[in-house]
Amino acid sequence: MSRITVLGLAGSLREGSFNRALLRAAIELADERIEAEVFDLRDMPFYNRDVEDRGDPEPVTALKEAVRSADLVVIATPEYNQSLPAVTKNAVDWASRPPKPQAWDGKPVAILGTSPGRLGTVSSQRTLRETLSAVNAYVMPRPRFILGGAAEVFEDGRLVDESTRERLRSFMSAAADWAERFMEDRT
Amino acid sequence: MSRITVLGLAGSLREGSFNRALLRAAIELADERIEAEVFDLRDMPFYNRDVEDRGDPEPVTALKEAVRSADLVVIATPEYNQSLPAVTKNAVDWASRPPKPQAWDGKPVAILGTSPGRLGTVSSQRTLRETLSAVNAYVMPRPRFILGGAAEVFEDGRLVDESTRERLRSFMSAAADWAERFMEDRT
Amino acid sequence: MSRITVLGLAGSLREGSFNRALLRAAIELADERIEAEVFDLRDMPFYNRDVEDRGDPEPVTALKEAVRSADLVVIATPEYNQSLPAVTKNAVDWASRPPKPQAWDGKPVAILGTSPGRLGTVSSQRTLRETLSAVNAYVMPRPRFILGGAAEVFEDGRLVDESTRERLRSFMSAAADWAERFMEDRT
Amino acid sequence: MSRITVLGLAGSLREGSFNRALLRAAIELADERIEAEVFDLRDMPFYNRDVEDRGDPEPVTALKEAVRSADLVVIATPEYNQSLPAVTKNAVDWASRPPKPQAWDGKPVAILGTSPGRLGTVSSQRTLRETLSAVNAYVMPRPRFILGGAAEVFEDGRLVDESTRERLRSFMSAAADWAERFMEDRT
Repeated sequence: MSRITVLGLAGSLREGSFNRALLRAAIELADERIEAEVFDLRDMPFYNRDVEDRGDPEPVTALKEAVRSADLVVIATPEYNQSLPAVTKNAVDWASRPPKPQAWDGKPVAILGTSPGRLGTVSSQRTLRETLSAVNAYVMPRPRFILGGAAEVFEDGRLVDESTRERLRSFMSAAADWAERFMEDRT
Repeated sequence: MSRITVLGLAGSLREGSFNRALLRAAIELADERIEAEVFDLRDMPFYNRDVEDRGDPEPVTALKEAVRSADLVVIATPEYNQSLPAVTKNAVDWASRPPKPQAWDGKPVAILGTSPGRLGTVSSQRTLRETLSAVNAYVMPRPRFILGGAAEVFEDGRLVDESTRERLRSFMSAAADWAERFMEDRT
Repeated sequence: MSRITVLGLAGSLREGSFNRALLRAAIELADERIEAEVFDLRDMPFYNRDVEDRGDPEPVTALKEAVRSADLVVIATPEYNQSLPAVTKNAVDWASRPPKPQAWDGKPVAILGTSPGRLGTVSSQRTLRETLSAVNAYVMPRPRFILGGAAEVFEDGRLVDESTRERLRSFMSAAADWAERFMEDRT
Repeated sequence: MSRITVLGLAGSLREGSFNRALLRAAIELADERIEAEVFDLRDMPFYNRDVEDRGDPEPVTALKEAVRSADLVVIATPEYNQSLPAVTKNAVDWASRPPKPQAWDGKPVAILGTSPGRLGTVSSQRTLRETLSAVNAYVMPRPRFILGGAAEVFEDGRLVDESTRERLRSFMSAAADWAERFMEDRT
């Protein structure tokens, strides 16, 4: 039985970001089917067609390859002004570029997010879902993982709330099921 | 009678961008009430709380000031994957940061956009409208300016189609009316 | 000094609806500038062009007139499946029909909503805002009034939570200011 | 090899509706894998919790059963005011109600739409996609079928434009593939 290779992306550049911490917790709590790596978006330049025409910068090549080779992409995104951060959108856009088929095409994706406020990224997740649909990614519709009150459940970058951990464990298990559904397909 | 100071932002970094060209045309075709400057987003870094905590980089300070002092902000945005480019969203986010009241608060905004395809930025404009509503900008709801088939109406970076020029002229006139509505307010 | 005439619409048909109760509370807590009436959407048929072609049914005529003559429309909407209920959307659509200028054109609108869950209509308000922008209504962007946990703050159809009442009072005061901004305009 | 049973829904009540015509064409052009029936939404009442509490009206029971027993739901939706018509949303909402698992849960769905204008339902499809994601339907992300200029390609309720027919044929073939992917799953 082959493992599910998971690519984790966090849409925040902040060192102590709650969404980076959430992504780490998600991977830690994923069951043994999953083998995960995190791709750091820190060095990605803004998408710019002129830059692209001169050849993909190294972080872009690496991101495309990382998305392409994953069985499942897990994206933890913050919410800025009721929408997606530039960092998250920029990663979607670069990875959607040629050669065809672009890297998101038919790729299973699971979205999660956390924020200090009580509405916990509901709007940015919606925006992310929309744009991933445009690139033909297969985004798991349910369950959603929306976590408000981030400051209360993380401690030193670690998710410490037991019931949230349990909920995250079962989210990741659903995400693994979602990915396998499309992997069986390919055999 | 004082002039309406307009700040123009284009959400593309590409030198030959249709949206940069559209923004230039919009300013050229604006009536004599308007005095415009364009702010180039080329040097803006990605929003990052850690960077912000060390003090706003110069382009951020300049953008905040430019938004704050404008009577009207005109944003020409491309559409990537049925949503907003990172460049456009990043500008919204940085300018929404402290001190309070943040720069978008109560600011009249007009949105336009063009794309080579026939659907012409309808989805990215919708996404931009949503996030500007979150920062309490006053986005002109109608008319919309959605321009498909960009490759057919621009020539060497100049909008050459007469009927499109006429439509743009009347869009900018509506945008000036929209701005004045809120300026009178302040007197 | 003339009063601000407010039209209240609730997007739920349920007798004991939390959003009907919220709308009543909003009107009760509005300051003395406001004179309000509620229009009941109970008898509105589904929008149907064939029906329209035979002449507007009476409730449609009445709704158009009610929207047209109001200085401000206050809409309390539930959220169904992370989007707008049919009842709310149907009212927007009928009132947007001829003769021109249609009733929403340039009309100030304030949106609020409540739900039993904690996310409290954030998504349906976003959907409503989008469609009202399409009909050129002037929707107050901020403050938002999003009220989760409805079951805890209403009692026998009355909003009993003091801090929520205070928040609603100030929302309605902001809505009155928003309306006046456009009324002065018309003088 | 068992057939794919398809349920067709059209979000317009108008007799001569372009979207009803589009739905008929879609079914006509579907390949032999598909066995389709259309459910007429004409008699559906507005969702109302009080009505539901007294027991589902007959059309509601029938709709729930029709969605539940289909392998694929094909929805042709108009666009009103850059969003979903009440008729379409109302169908989604009623069918999402108990008993659990509700009828949309894990149901493959394909969305298409047409309009007289050139933007051809791009916004209503987006809104429909969002709400179907909330009920855990599996909406085919790509290809999209967005058909502007409806008046030019239909004649007496029949889709006569050959290239559009070809595009529709291949959309329906992709939709059948999408459905089969989840059917194999269930064996």
